Amino acid sequence: MPETKNKKNIDFNEWYNEIVELADLCDKRYPIKGMNVWRPYGWKLMTHVDQLIREEMIKTGHEEVCFPLLIPESSFQKEAEHIEGFGSEVYWVTHAGLNKLEERWLLRPTSETAMYPLFSLWIRSHADLPLKTFQIVNTFRYETKQTRAFIRVREIHFFEAHTCHVDFEDAEKQIREDKKIAERLFTKLSLPFIFSKRPEWDKFAGAFYTISIDVLMPSGRTLQLGSIHQYRDNFSKPYEIKYETETGEHAYCHQTTYGMSERILGALVGIHGDDKGLVMPPSVAPVQVIIIPIIFKGKEKQIYKACDILDEKLHDNGIRSHVDKRDITPGSKYYDWELKGVPLRVEIGPKDLEKKEVVLVRRDTGEKKSIPEEKSIEIIEKELGDVSKTLYEKAKKFLTENMHRVKTIDEAKKFKGIVELPWCGSEDCALEVENILEGNTLGEPIDEEKCSGYICPICSRPAETWMRYAKMY
Amino acid sequence: MPETKNKKNIDFNEWYNEIVELADLCDKRYPIKGMNVWRPYGWKLMTHVDQLIREEMIKTGHEEVCFPLLIPESSFQKEAEHIEGFGSEVYWVTHAGLNKLEERWLLRPTSETAMYPLFSLWIRSHADLPLKTFQIVNTFRYETKQTRAFIRVREIHFFEAHTCHVDFEDAEKQIREDKKIAERLFTKLSLPFIFSKRPEWDKFAGAFYTISIDVLMPSGRTLQLGSIHQYRDNFSKPYEIKYETETGEHAYCHQTTYGMSERILGALVGIHGDDKGLVMPPSVAPVQVIIIPIIFKGKEKQIYKACDILDEKLHDNGIRSHVDKRDITPGSKYYDWELKGVPLRVEIGPKDLEKKEVVLVRRDTGEKKSIPEEKSIEIIEKELGDVSKTLYEKAKKFLTENMHRVKTIDEAKKFKGIVELPWCGSEDCALEVENILEGNTLGEPIDEEKCSGYICPICSRPAETWMRYAKMY
Repeated sequence: MPETKNKKNIDFNEWYNEIVELADLCDKRYPIKGMNVWRPYGWKLMTHVDQLIREEMIKTGHEEVCFPLLIPESSFQKEAEHIEGFGSEVYWVTHAGLNKLEERWLLRPTSETAMYPLFSLWIRSHADLPLKTFQIVNTFRYETKQTRAFIRVREIHFFEAHTCHVDFEDAEKQIREDKKIAERLFTKLSLPFIFSKRPEWDKFAGAFYTISIDVLMPSGRTLQLGSIHQYRDNFSKPYEIKYETETGEHAYCHQTTYGMSERILGALVGIHGDDKGLVMPPSVAPVQVIIIPIIFKGKEKQIYKACDILDEKLHDNGIRSHVDKRDITPGSKYYDWELKGVPLRVEIGPKDLEKKEVVLVRRDTGEKKSIPEEKSIEIIEKELGDVSKTLYEKAKKFLTENMHRVKTIDEAKKFKGIVELPWCGSEDCALEVENILEGNTLGEPIDEEKCSGYICPICSRPAETWMRYAKMY
Repeated sequence: MPETKNKKNIDFNEWYNEIVELADLCDKRYPIKGMNVWRPYGWKLMTHVDQLIREEMIKTGHEEVCFPLLIPESSFQKEAEHIEGFGSEVYWVTHAGLNKLEERWLLRPTSETAMYPLFSLWIRSHADLPLKTFQIVNTFRYETKQTRAFIRVREIHFFEAHTCHVDFEDAEKQIREDKKIAERLFTKLSLPFIFSKRPEWDKFAGAFYTISIDVLMPSGRTLQLGSIHQYRDNFSKPYEIKYETETGEHAYCHQTTYGMSERILGALVGIHGDDKGLVMPPSVAPVQVIIIPIIFKGKEKQIYKACDILDEKLHDNGIRSHVDKRDITPGSKYYDWELKGVPLRVEIGPKDLEKKEVVLVRRDTGEKKSIPEEKSIEIIEKELGDVSKTLYEKAKKFLTENMHRVKTIDEAKKFKGIVELPWCGSEDCALEVENILEGNTLGEPIDEEKCSGYICPICSRPAETWMRYAKMY
């Protein structure tokens, strides 16, 4: 069976670059670097991920909106830290036709500055709160580092939820909900992740605090898939998002945002894939079950019929299946659908027909078995669930094995992946650890006890918390 | 019952401007003119329309892709007529962060020049053809005329299908398919329309010919909802989209495109709406059936229960229903849902419960009747179909009554809407008619016999075809 030229375990990055094009996810030959073309299969996968996100949002009372792409420079410039953070990363529209614009417009890198002037018009009273909105749109960042499909691109397929609340505590409640959404979503995607509270010097520009959602890629680097931000009233003050309280006073809203991007697809490719191609979790696989007729002369009709009957039954049970009737060898079909990461393959040949069986092959484990035709739906449903679970557990094992809590720099040096060290709370010490380990500060663990009884490995003062370090994409 | 301030029959344009905001479709207060904010209800409607289009595309073997928004100036400049047509209407990105770009990039007004350099890489042999793709994306045009929500905007929610074929005839076959798609789609939307072959001087920049899809708005102006273009090899030559034929020669592809936009939403609002608000065809109505509990003290539980049971049954039958349990009067609920254009309203009160009936009210006709509860699903399904039909027939009647085939300018002057006049084929004569009638040349009827035995009302030479004129949005 043909395999990728690059091997995942030997050169992950090259394997990744090869597989995203080989599996027809995207085309990197577009004449602007970092702006890739979504090919049909990649776009289908992405929209399936979007749909999972959308369902979570709707279930939790968020409403979908769509704001303009272009933002006037004057709207952008209202929140000082935000401009400082994004100013050097945005694209500017300066001309329309042959005319120079009176004011420059930027392509949204994220939509705070597009949305908040309108939020200040939409929100009048406490009865308008909480306001919970989201959109799934294209955003733009002028990346100067090396680009990589889905992971570091200049046009980004982006999800962003924006909420407004009566006070800090209600915004905190939103963040608790956001964390639960992440847990449900990434479980469906078989992607174990960790929450980290990003350090002060690396939080989102304008935020009060930022919680990042990171996965560990097979290269040992972390990939940030999303982030949840508590803004407090940092934006509502400059954008004047005020409301009348029940007692008739005026108060500023407290806000949160929740962002995720096409990086999720990068994680699905990188974490689950192998040297035969993609391995897609059933929740987002465009085809969940591929049915391959094993044709013998004189038996064509019966075999096609058996395939079609199973296909229809699967559809009726809400399973995305497809019969591959192309005039090529079964082996070529196996190759194609393995490359595309279809979770389950069913083969139906004359011998299977005689025995009233079908052959079932799992993409993730390669396991092959004959199952009774009459129980096929039930077994396929169970196997799809098992594929999700197995993918999750495999990734979870990798994450657990590559995340270490240690007390000294020397111990930290022994490990790849993520290390946690006691931290005194000073930026200088964290940056020193970064230097020594040639990694980045990922952030503090959340929802756990502080680190007590340990000392900072740099300055030897008592540690306040644990701090995570890793090489990051 | 409260109504719009502006009346549809008295001042259509003002009524339209009022209703799009009142019904929560969009917010026009965004600080860039012609770039509006999609509010949740408007975005839901739009995505329902998108979904109908997507289903048609997938059924006919098109694959969904997503190309970058930004196009390098050098890619854009390969087809001379196309640049001439669009050059003065595009927005230019000139800077990234603090740096001036080496080459200017434009925001796509349409995606020929983004897609075709890649198509030339994707297509190698006749076996790769036909290539049938589509995308639903945001596009940009620098409109200098007065903007109007959904109808004339600067950021446009846009559908575009692009296909490549072995020869002209295969491309023509595609256009026949496109026309059938339009017929199915616009029937579902209860929007009667006409196809017109646009005149040479007003076809799409770069096309061999253009067929427009126009509806007649209540103001008597036509609104172009979409267009189908035969490109022949006009683009494939400059973009080098070639393939190897079965005999080993190289040939240029023939191409077609099919474009539609958020104007469809403008037509739905304008054509079906009334002074109470929107009237949405069931195919795209976010809520198809709104259930209003008519609460009397002591009966709350039973009534809510009856509402919930009906709601669940409707859901089980694939109908989008909702029970409005807000603590406001039934009258206020009627008002809200009428404004939103929900096709059917069900009222359930204690008397109805006793009689095992529910009250059914149609949004389009206002007709109100009691129906037996046990037959409610069946009757509601039938009524939803009837609403679609009634909306279609009403709009069709308006179109028929406002489209006249006449022989002289004097006759033409008598009518509003669309007139058809004999035409000699000269641009000068058509432009003279435009002047006299203060209208635009819409195009020739397609798929019908040529006009014979008549003379051009301007130059008196024998007419070749009929030509349509109308005021256009």
